[in-house]
Amino acid sequence: MRLRVITPITTQGFMSAEAFASVLRPDTELSHVAIERGPTSIESEFDSMLAAPDTVAKIVQAERDGMDAVIINCMDDPGMKAAREMVAIPVVGPGEATMHVAAMLGHSFSVLTVLDWLTPMYVNHARIYGVADKLASVRSVDIPVLELESDEERLVRLLTDQAVRAIEEDDAHVMIFGCTGMLGTARRVQDGLVDRGYPGVPVIDSMVWAIKMAEALADMELSHSKRTYPYPPRKMIVGYDVEPAREAVPAD
Amino acid sequence: MRLRVITPITTQGFMSAEAFASVLRPDTELSHVAIERGPTSIESEFDSMLAAPDTVAKIVQAERDGMDAVIINCMDDPGMKAAREMVAIPVVGPGEATMHVAAMLGHSFSVLTVLDWLTPMYVNHARIYGVADKLASVRSVDIPVLELESDEERLVRLLTDQAVRAIEEDDAHVMIFGCTGMLGTARRVQDGLVDRGYPGVPVIDSMVWAIKMAEALADMELSHSKRTYPYPPRKMIVGYDVEPAREAVPAD
Amino acid sequence: MRLRVITPITTQGFMSAEAFASVLRPDTELSHVAIERGPTSIESEFDSMLAAPDTVAKIVQAERDGMDAVIINCMDDPGMKAAREMVAIPVVGPGEATMHVAAMLGHSFSVLTVLDWLTPMYVNHARIYGVADKLASVRSVDIPVLELESDEERLVRLLTDQAVRAIEEDDAHVMIFGCTGMLGTARRVQDGLVDRGYPGVPVIDSMVWAIKMAEALADMELSHSKRTYPYPPRKMIVGYDVEPAREAVPAD
Amino acid sequence: MRLRVITPITTQGFMSAEAFASVLRPDTELSHVAIERGPTSIESEFDSMLAAPDTVAKIVQAERDGMDAVIINCMDDPGMKAAREMVAIPVVGPGEATMHVAAMLGHSFSVLTVLDWLTPMYVNHARIYGVADKLASVRSVDIPVLELESDEERLVRLLTDQAVRAIEEDDAHVMIFGCTGMLGTARRVQDGLVDRGYPGVPVIDSMVWAIKMAEALADMELSHSKRTYPYPPRKMIVGYDVEPAREAVPAD
Amino acid sequence: MRLRVITPITTQGFMSAEAFASVLRPDTELSHVAIERGPTSIESEFDSMLAAPDTVAKIVQAERDGMDAVIINCMDDPGMKAAREMVAIPVVGPGEATMHVAAMLGHSFSVLTVLDWLTPMYVNHARIYGVADKLASVRSVDIPVLELESDEERLVRLLTDQAVRAIEEDDAHVMIFGCTGMLGTARRVQDGLVDRGYPGVPVIDSMVWAIKMAEALADMELSHSKRTYPYPPRKMIVGYDVEPAREAVPAD
Amino acid sequence: MRLRVITPITTQGFMSAEAFASVLRPDTELSHVAIERGPTSIESEFDSMLAAPDTVAKIVQAERDGMDAVIINCMDDPGMKAAREMVAIPVVGPGEATMHVAAMLGHSFSVLTVLDWLTPMYVNHARIYGVADKLASVRSVDIPVLELESDEERLVRLLTDQAVRAIEEDDAHVMIFGCTGMLGTARRVQDGLVDRGYPGVPVIDSMVWAIKMAEALADMELSHSKRTYPYPPRKMIVGYDVEPAREAVPAD
Repeated sequence: MRLRVITPITTQGFMSAEAFASVLRPDTELSHVAIERGPTSIESEFDSMLAAPDTVAKIVQAERDGMDAVIINCMDDPGMKAAREMVAIPVVGPGEATMHVAAMLGHSFSVLTVLDWLTPMYVNHARIYGVADKLASVRSVDIPVLELESDEERLVRLLTDQAVRAIEEDDAHVMIFGCTGMLGTARRVQDGLVDRGYPGVPVIDSMVWAIKMAEALADMELSHSKRTYPYPPRKMIVGYDVEPAREAVPAD
Repeated sequence: MRLRVITPITTQGFMSAEAFASVLRPDTELSHVAIERGPTSIESEFDSMLAAPDTVAKIVQAERDGMDAVIINCMDDPGMKAAREMVAIPVVGPGEATMHVAAMLGHSFSVLTVLDWLTPMYVNHARIYGVADKLASVRSVDIPVLELESDEERLVRLLTDQAVRAIEEDDAHVMIFGCTGMLGTARRVQDGLVDRGYPGVPVIDSMVWAIKMAEALADMELSHSKRTYPYPPRKMIVGYDVEPAREAVPAD
Repeated sequence: MRLRVITPITTQGFMSAEAFASVLRPDTELSHVAIERGPTSIESEFDSMLAAPDTVAKIVQAERDGMDAVIINCMDDPGMKAAREMVAIPVVGPGEATMHVAAMLGHSFSVLTVLDWLTPMYVNHARIYGVADKLASVRSVDIPVLELESDEERLVRLLTDQAVRAIEEDDAHVMIFGCTGMLGTARRVQDGLVDRGYPGVPVIDSMVWAIKMAEALADMELSHSKRTYPYPPRKMIVGYDVEPAREAVPAD
Repeated sequence: MRLRVITPITTQGFMSAEAFASVLRPDTELSHVAIERGPTSIESEFDSMLAAPDTVAKIVQAERDGMDAVIINCMDDPGMKAAREMVAIPVVGPGEATMHVAAMLGHSFSVLTVLDWLTPMYVNHARIYGVADKLASVRSVDIPVLELESDEERLVRLLTDQAVRAIEEDDAHVMIFGCTGMLGTARRVQDGLVDRGYPGVPVIDSMVWAIKMAEALADMELSHSKRTYPYPPRKMIVGYDVEPAREAVPAD
Repeated sequence: MRLRVITPITTQGFMSAEAFASVLRPDTELSHVAIERGPTSIESEFDSMLAAPDTVAKIVQAERDGMDAVIINCMDDPGMKAAREMVAIPVVGPGEATMHVAAMLGHSFSVLTVLDWLTPMYVNHARIYGVADKLASVRSVDIPVLELESDEERLVRLLTDQAVRAIEEDDAHVMIFGCTGMLGTARRVQDGLVDRGYPGVPVIDSMVWAIKMAEALADMELSHSKRTYPYPPRKMIVGYDVEPAREAVPAD
Repeated sequence: MRLRVITPITTQGFMSAEAFASVLRPDTELSHVAIERGPTSIESEFDSMLAAPDTVAKIVQAERDGMDAVIINCMDDPGMKAAREMVAIPVVGPGEATMHVAAMLGHSFSVLTVLDWLTPMYVNHARIYGVADKLASVRSVDIPVLELESDEERLVRLLTDQAVRAIEEDDAHVMIFGCTGMLGTARRVQDGLVDRGYPGVPVIDSMVWAIKMAEALADMELSHSKRTYPYPPRKMIVGYDVEPAREAVPAD
């Protein structure tokens, strides 16, 4: 199985394929690309908008390269809907995938994210993805994306603090990471909750779950509905190097 | 009062400021620009994504030019949220503005749009804009955007047909246009409904209403909340000529 | 353009047409009437019920007098639905109009009202008007309606206090006034929020917005749907001086 | 136990206490009054508005007369909320009471009413009463209220026809009457459904159920919450002979 | 009228028919049985699951014994849906019945229950029963079911404490008991609220209300819809002594 | 990895571990057990209730046997909640798991099930699982569970027919099987839709997806929240051979 992670920011070295090596199944081969046009990090609707076009271009390329599925490396799922229109292979957004598994694992979930002002974005996503009834709250650690890696101890401590508040004040039963840059800390936050008197609360590393979903969908040869995401009509595009869609036949 | 309409497609001559002359208040001066990078029409999430960056750039420019408010000339409201982050003046999307007035004028409303596969987009917008309870249905005339002007008689007839079905099958009480390219036909569709036995059903020309909302907001010096749409953090952007936001101070 | 404000209480001198002079467009002529039968203020469902019949009578008269639109001067919108049945001109209720614009300007809004026990009324209105998802909270200053004008400093201070709590405790992004008697203090409350560290939070004077909506609807010759608000069947009414509807033909 | 039915229309002889004799418990004494000011029937928001003030006055009188509970004889529940503010005894509206029992008895229910244009009123009531998820549809027999009694055979046949359509087209599992003037035909409609191949579908005579609810509430000395319906502040009322509330102390 | 209470736990002497003697109508004869297979109390989904089969068996027996209606003596309503499939007489669950009357009596209600972890169960019930919009909160006294009777003073005090918090923190207007073992304390909790400054807040003894509903339904010969609860197809059951349904004809 | 499928019916030979061999990952070892007490098939709430206790007992045994996860082989997910209370390993119900993936893959989904009267059960599940906004409809092939295997051609044809109606009448974009006994026909139904003019519509074999979810959860050592599903308090159970929970410490 061949998967590709698309990191929708232009910062070099933010993430590499090796980061996921331990969670992959033996037969999964994972490649990684970052976008070349767009912002250095995604912390607003504006950033997300500028990240989307090249993310979609990279996803179109991934399908041409024979990938079985792609994963967008950002909880905002930039470009996910447009990319699904352009390709037939599964396009997994960690925001959507993780909200759904969290809704399955418990009565309610909270999103632990980087910055407070992203709350409306997550609330709106929950409404569109269809899981708004299960969203207990969005809470932030107030750390910009590119500083997440600089002090992992502090990050784990702040995530644990916010998870405790989500449990006590918002009655949240499951936690999901609201930034894929938090990769690798879920187990420690979950252990931190045990220490704080809250055992048995799943803390989900969104990006890892997204990869497992990509594996599962590709295994079953399942992908998004082309009634929801038909191939776009071919037309002239000025200023973007996006190849036309593989087929231009709408779904009906 | 100075308003500017931003048409988020690259097709020349699709619309001009004159088109709105008759509906403006005497003291309103309206200018118009089209984007220079993006698709020739918007008929998919993919098109909308590619239209957004230059739409936002044109809105940033409009604020610099001293405009009192801007209106995006597309029912999908491309770039609206990102643009609101970047400027302080009101940014009116006809999709949002018209759904809300339709919700006020009657028990339920239908969107009459160009192509069937746009339905999920309107349903999702209604969910995010907060008026999903009032959306009776989305119905389409099955005409691509750029062919809307070629046969206005046929357009009016097909819009009236779909409005009748929306009344009879979906119990819709108000109609709104799901493409700003339908500009100028609302009165004739409303008259057509009278002829078909359905008097008193408002048919709203979305783009005209959006302009009236821009006038009203600017009159009151009201604009979007900066808690919902804070200025984005300044950062390096590769490949886009977007000037940094006027201020880069987040809302809290 | 000719508009009329109907104040649905019997207190003399509570409001006059001059109060709105500064916000009107130059071509708008605004007249004002108060009801002659009903309560001295509206602070309960009981008051609202007794205010409605003469409010509707005054609206019927306004249409006969050639008004282009009417505005009901009370956030409870007493008689709005019945009046819409009786006339063809737009009947704007500030409760409905302002909840919708607040839903457009931000992620969530709070109603700042006079008395705590009015909360269920606003929550029910949000449900019927279709914007319940956007209502963050209802908060009150605990001042009876007729005392609002006696100490404007105190009113502004208490409104600002409640707005701060709405932001901090309820995550509200926009404020609307829950009593039209608060007229004229919106700008000062909004400035007060800046001083308290919350810039960019719109505070909407509900009655002023309602007038701007009346202007916009009348400009477009748009009014409520007669499928939602058909003319009532003619019948004998005992004890009320209500003239029969202009037409008595139901909508279908 | 002493109950009183308030019929909120001015038509003489529309209903009498005898109509309910067979469904009462032996220890229940039921009196009946009609209003003296208002419309001859209720078929619009306008009619309902004019019926409410004297309905409330009659309910206030009923409490003074020592009644244990009152029932409003109209599915629109005119004046119910205002009356609850004015008295402490249970005020049962058949619209509210029957929607709730229908929600208990099956997966979904339909309202069978007199006139098509009443649909928005029932939908709005379901939203406020909190049972919107269970409302399958509103269907009408297209007979004005005062003609309901003129041809009972036809009424039963048309009600049965609409009930069959509600089952087949709207997947309704329970039927409730949308006009209390349909009193006495529920059993025959239910039998008609058996003949049409649909056994086991409850058809609820809304007014009878409302009386049983009044008996049950009075038995338990339960009434509405005074936090939702506090006594209105005392104030001058012009043009209505409404006595002040028994107490004028708001709930908090 | 003959009613039967089924107590779905195996603890002897937990409740007897005498407990309800004072609330019954004179013509109501009430019998009581406890189940013989299942848990000693219900405090989890696991307990509820094990209580259900014998509860249903006892309800089938009750119908054979000529009962007019049955009431399940547990707020979790164990076996209610399955029992309704098996019999034609009304099967009243106190959870469902009381949530609906609470929704009628006020703007919002809270459930006062025994143990914190039952919250998701009540929230899910509110969603299925269709009254989720009216549920303000679930609060617990943290006392296991079988200890409820050991110190009634303490129970009343803790219930009152939680009711006060539900009013002050969750804006609840009506209280219902979340365990039928709290039988007999409603009046004292309601009086306690008056002492704490909250008059006029109904506190509903769920089991008593359920019995009044059974009386009312049986009076009207109303029962659940057989379209929602058709007789199950006959088939071989291993390991349970459940007699086949009275009829095995599904509803359509 | 060691998984176990629990088939919650007593019919011998209905399913075996071999049926899933082709979809398993090479390192997954799958065992299978059927229950010994309960119904021969599940076609009602009554059947589901009787299937649950031994299903839970078998799941408790599976954890003792060292399984990494279990899957319940029935779309009604009988016993899922109770089982999650009793064990720490993931308990996957195909109803819940497949509704969530369907919500991810498209705008809306329909359940294709065996018998019409199961509709309320699926609607209620969608409400509890939090995906009700995405459920387009439930449609049935009208074939009892145990006859599903007797004529696979007919089953595929009827499933395709209902899927076409779900697309055309209910605007469904994704199909899921509403009975795990339909195993193995998804691909042919999906191909049938292509032949009928509807390419790109995912048809999901619910049981296969449930197994892939179990693999993914076990890979990540993720399981349900113990705040939602705490271990039940230990107590005496009469008439069931259920061992006490591994731990009896509630979650808080």
